[in-house]
Amino acid sequence: MDQTYQRIVLASRPQGRVTPANFRLECVPQSIPGPGQLRVRVHYLSLDPYMRGRMDEAKSYAESQKLDETMIGGAVGVVDASNHPGFAVGDTVVGLLGWQEYGLSDGTMLTKIDTRVVPMSAYLGPVGMPGVTAWYGLNCICEPKRGETVLVSAASGAVGSVVGQLAKQVGCRAVGIAGGPEKCEYVVDELGFDACIDHRSHADAQSMARALRAAAPDGVDCLFENVGGICLDAALSCMNPFGRIALCGLIAGYDGADIALANVRALLVMRLKLRGFIVSDHMDAWPPALAELGRAVATEKIKYRETIAEGLAAAPKAFIGLLAGRNFGKQLVKLV
Amino acid sequence: MDQTYQRIVLASRPQGRVTPANFRLECVPQSIPGPGQLRVRVHYLSLDPYMRGRMDEAKSYAESQKLDETMIGGAVGVVDASNHPGFAVGDTVVGLLGWQEYGLSDGTMLTKIDTRVVPMSAYLGPVGMPGVTAWYGLNCICEPKRGETVLVSAASGAVGSVVGQLAKQVGCRAVGIAGGPEKCEYVVDELGFDACIDHRSHADAQSMARALRAAAPDGVDCLFENVGGICLDAALSCMNPFGRIALCGLIAGYDGADIALANVRALLVMRLKLRGFIVSDHMDAWPPALAELGRAVATEKIKYRETIAEGLAAAPKAFIGLLAGRNFGKQLVKLV
Repeated sequence: MDQTYQRIVLASRPQGRVTPANFRLECVPQSIPGPGQLRVRVHYLSLDPYMRGRMDEAKSYAESQKLDETMIGGAVGVVDASNHPGFAVGDTVVGLLGWQEYGLSDGTMLTKIDTRVVPMSAYLGPVGMPGVTAWYGLNCICEPKRGETVLVSAASGAVGSVVGQLAKQVGCRAVGIAGGPEKCEYVVDELGFDACIDHRSHADAQSMARALRAAAPDGVDCLFENVGGICLDAALSCMNPFGRIALCGLIAGYDGADIALANVRALLVMRLKLRGFIVSDHMDAWPPALAELGRAVATEKIKYRETIAEGLAAAPKAFIGLLAGRNFGKQLVKLV
Repeated sequence: MDQTYQRIVLASRPQGRVTPANFRLECVPQSIPGPGQLRVRVHYLSLDPYMRGRMDEAKSYAESQKLDETMIGGAVGVVDASNHPGFAVGDTVVGLLGWQEYGLSDGTMLTKIDTRVVPMSAYLGPVGMPGVTAWYGLNCICEPKRGETVLVSAASGAVGSVVGQLAKQVGCRAVGIAGGPEKCEYVVDELGFDACIDHRSHADAQSMARALRAAAPDGVDCLFENVGGICLDAALSCMNPFGRIALCGLIAGYDGADIALANVRALLVMRLKLRGFIVSDHMDAWPPALAELGRAVATEKIKYRETIAEGLAAAPKAFIGLLAGRNFGKQLVKLV
């Protein structure tokens, strides 16, 4: 057992873009589990776009991240000390353990995971929160039917990659939007999407809309939106009547000023349904989603890709890269 | 029987704002009903915001209004010649008869109405398309619960006035947005809304949002949106989590450039449901809605107000006034 461990706290709130100075790496004395508690040695830390909202004062849906406290975050690791009857030393677990090498828990929202078939890190990706997000938004909001076209932005990301692969399993045409030719190639060749648009090669919504219309010749019935900005405006101009939009994220506007939506009229004219959602509001969806996703990953029906930063000190830079789209697939930080 | 009658055709498509020159008044020979047809002498013509969309080439949800053809429009009148077994001379009817003094019909979408309790003109307002629009959007999209707050823009208008009165009957707090102190006073004192905000006294969404927060201290659960622009941005900033938005119109942006939506983030953060709708997609809602609305108007549980222009030649100016909010309540043109 280490006598001290490292953690990262929120040092200051971003003024516009996140900078490394918003974080502080601290070395703190090792914590000892109290009665009913257990301690987890974190192996992988998950970095996710939602964390950006928590760093602001109160713009987001959840409580703000408190200053000088350990950054919130999902993680997987192994129990290395336990006074909890439900968890034994050596159990592998996933939970909100934060940006730190060791986390204490009373077992709340902590889940034992089976790493014999699905690797540990996948429980932070396709068999974790991002996967359930994809599953819920697609199945419970978009409700795609065989033969329809599903469009998803940030298509190579942890959520978007699962959306498109699930849509293909329903018998839909899956069209992605991603940043750069390498990601687009991966989305089509590896993930099996029918087409992918590189948003970096389009300067405005009109140009992107033309590309989308070519990629979705029958129009878009379901939009799974992770990005906002011109991606959303272009997508709206391609929606079919009675289309459904799962609004999952607006990452284009997270790290700076909000980006306005020009094409509000499409929502009316095409009689669209749009729903913003947060997967933690729908805990009843997690068990069936995780069961399905676990099977799909184990049998390689769902593929995924990870970008892994090494060591806790790398987390801030990796997180800033995530907001800029520099990751490729699920962004993780490997601590062990 | 007149030997000729007047009609108004679309002379040209608007470039930006509608002008009188976009219309042309014509005097044409009287039409004679063929087999299975009937002729209606139009008493009241309905002017409605949706007509603005039809005047453009293809921006709207329905077919464009064709150039040099009679402007589309709902109307009420009396059958004055009939070769149709279902309609007799003297029957009062409502239907899409257009901007003209006489209309031919084969009976399709033409409905006999009972004017003994509800006046003829009300079938173009609270007991017609605007009333059903209010009923559908409120009951089938907003689904307000007792004690919730319902916000409606264009609250003194044909649709908005019914929305607020129905919301009060459910036991909701009803808050309106209207243009000018006279309309706001009417909305509260006559229609029974709990509060009404004058959008003309607010230059931006922030200022309007402050007024809305005072008028809706528990936040807004249901938004019935007719206007768009800063009304919609302000309303979004006051929505409670899991709020519902019936997007019925965007009149602020009809007569010129579309107005962008700044506060997209609220849709995500507050997990809102938004649905654009057109009442003609939901014909199954009309019979129950009209039955309820007819009873409510007959028993004065729903009040309404009309602005009546005299004579067909007055229709273009009245329509331009409607787009600018110069009408007060339902805008009609009286022909007989």
